[in-house]
Amino acid sequence: MAVYTDVTEPDLSAFLERYDLGRLLSYKGIAEGVENSNFLLRSDKGTFILTLYERRVARGDLPFFIGLMEHLAGRGLSCPLPVPARDGTALGELAGRPAALFTFLEGMWTRHPLAADCRQVGAAMARMHLAAADFPIRRENALSVGAWRPLYEACGGRADEVAAGLGEEIQTELGKLEAAWPSGLPAGVIHADLFPDNVFFLSGELSGLIDFYFACNDLLAYDLAIALCAWCFEPDQSFNVTKGRALLGGYESVRPLEREEVEVFPLLARGAAMRFLLTRLYDWLTIPDTSFVTKKDPLEYLRKSRFLRTIESVGDYGVDVRVGR
Amino acid sequence: MAVYTDVTEPDLSAFLERYDLGRLLSYKGIAEGVENSNFLLRSDKGTFILTLYERRVARGDLPFFIGLMEHLAGRGLSCPLPVPARDGTALGELAGRPAALFTFLEGMWTRHPLAADCRQVGAAMARMHLAAADFPIRRENALSVGAWRPLYEACGGRADEVAAGLGEEIQTELGKLEAAWPSGLPAGVIHADLFPDNVFFLSGELSGLIDFYFACNDLLAYDLAIALCAWCFEPDQSFNVTKGRALLGGYESVRPLEREEVEVFPLLARGAAMRFLLTRLYDWLTIPDTSFVTKKDPLEYLRKSRFLRTIESVGDYGVDVRVGR
Repeated sequence: MAVYTDVTEPDLSAFLERYDLGRLLSYKGIAEGVENSNFLLRSDKGTFILTLYERRVARGDLPFFIGLMEHLAGRGLSCPLPVPARDGTALGELAGRPAALFTFLEGMWTRHPLAADCRQVGAAMARMHLAAADFPIRRENALSVGAWRPLYEACGGRADEVAAGLGEEIQTELGKLEAAWPSGLPAGVIHADLFPDNVFFLSGELSGLIDFYFACNDLLAYDLAIALCAWCFEPDQSFNVTKGRALLGGYESVRPLEREEVEVFPLLARGAAMRFLLTRLYDWLTIPDTSFVTKKDPLEYLRKSRFLRTIESVGDYGVDVRVGR
Repeated sequence: MAVYTDVTEPDLSAFLERYDLGRLLSYKGIAEGVENSNFLLRSDKGTFILTLYERRVARGDLPFFIGLMEHLAGRGLSCPLPVPARDGTALGELAGRPAALFTFLEGMWTRHPLAADCRQVGAAMARMHLAAADFPIRRENALSVGAWRPLYEACGGRADEVAAGLGEEIQTELGKLEAAWPSGLPAGVIHADLFPDNVFFLSGELSGLIDFYFACNDLLAYDLAIALCAWCFEPDQSFNVTKGRALLGGYESVRPLEREEVEVFPLLARGAAMRFLLTRLYDWLTIPDTSFVTKKDPLEYLRKSRFLRTIESVGDYGVDVRVGR
């Protein structure tokens, strides 16, 4: 849950004077998004999401994020659409923070994904990758392979506080990932955080994607590897092959993977598990317990990482990927 | 902010089958209410508030709270109206907790009340007192004068950790309040927590009252004394006589105070300050810092208590109450 900044009605009313939204009827802080403060706002003209960008989001990245959502919505992808002010700009300032309004996306995220959901998520991700192909702004992935060792080192040798031997295990795996990490694969804009709470469904149909604030340029298949980690394990961290097959099959129904992407996919999945293991480990060790942030368990991703290290080819997931069509 | 319990869509859909709300479109946890979990819910039929009652609310009190809101709304007071299920009942169960749906009340609470707001609050409180006069269920005030000394003793002699000499100061004041606390004044159902975040305004007009979960039977003028503490002090805890006059004047425009109420009002205000000083002190000393609850500063109410002890008659507030019309 996230409402880091409160907003007064006079400040909000002044902000809204730039828009054609009619009379403000209500606004309520909502438990959505981790990095920013979000409000559900109602006016004569409908329901909107108001986002205030907090310090963890770099101001220089906002044109990428907001432009990407405009670009994707313009190509028919269902995602929040930035609402422009009368002067055409989508980004303003409120309570001393950059702020923007978005259309409200109906739907609910699923706490217990089904294989059919995974198939839809794969297809939606592929459509997003294709729709973003001609998006003109670039944003490097600040959390790709090159960032993982510095992130580990920022933990100050304290990994073993979380699990005995964890430090050595991470360093060994990091060495392998760094040595074998591919280049030259199909790349473009990826979501990079397409977890269940960022995908909405309505009556069993995927109704939209939200929270593009980790989006960046990276390998397309790496985005799919992140989703595999996020969607295809059960609560006990056992891998569900039916969900894995559905996710990859859904993706390939829109954008078939190339042979090289399939070959290197097990490594990308290990990398994805390492990325979330490391950010969770860092947060676990550095965020004070008195904080309002709910810290996520790094061990969940340690267990996923260990499973993924046993996989040598995509076939070992039980997934039958049709390559080279 | 408060979302203590998460809700899954299947559980919510099962809960909603008892209602005629059409298709569920979205639900989001909102930062409203302190004791319960609240969601803003949208369906084909409109926007609603879903409340899950957490442990701090006694189940036996729910018929009082829900019945009171139905009663008040039925008499034209603007407050959330419990939405009955098809079988006519407003109270169900969701995620193992008692749960109820309410109509959505447009409006926003004011972070910086004006005197004109205080006048409207006073009038709305008086209308509520009159509208509740024939409400048939009773609920004793668990936080009235008899509860204060036990609450102080539950702090375990640790008051001086918050301010030197605070323990002795509280005990002295408690003795005076207990000795002089009145009985026989006009009594009935009071809101007992009508702070600014529980009053909504729309374009400067009071649009409704919310959060009746401290409502109980007690002296009507004590409710007004609580509001005086909550609305008529500036952020530096200086008393604003213009706001005090507006609050009492607004109240008296609907229900003139009786002579005995006016005479004892300074004592009731001291009691109100003591009640919030003590609950805040108790929370301050007993809620762990790792909790998600934002603890409110007890010293705010110590400063208000000290000011109110200097007042001998309502006239000393600068308030000219017209008694005995």
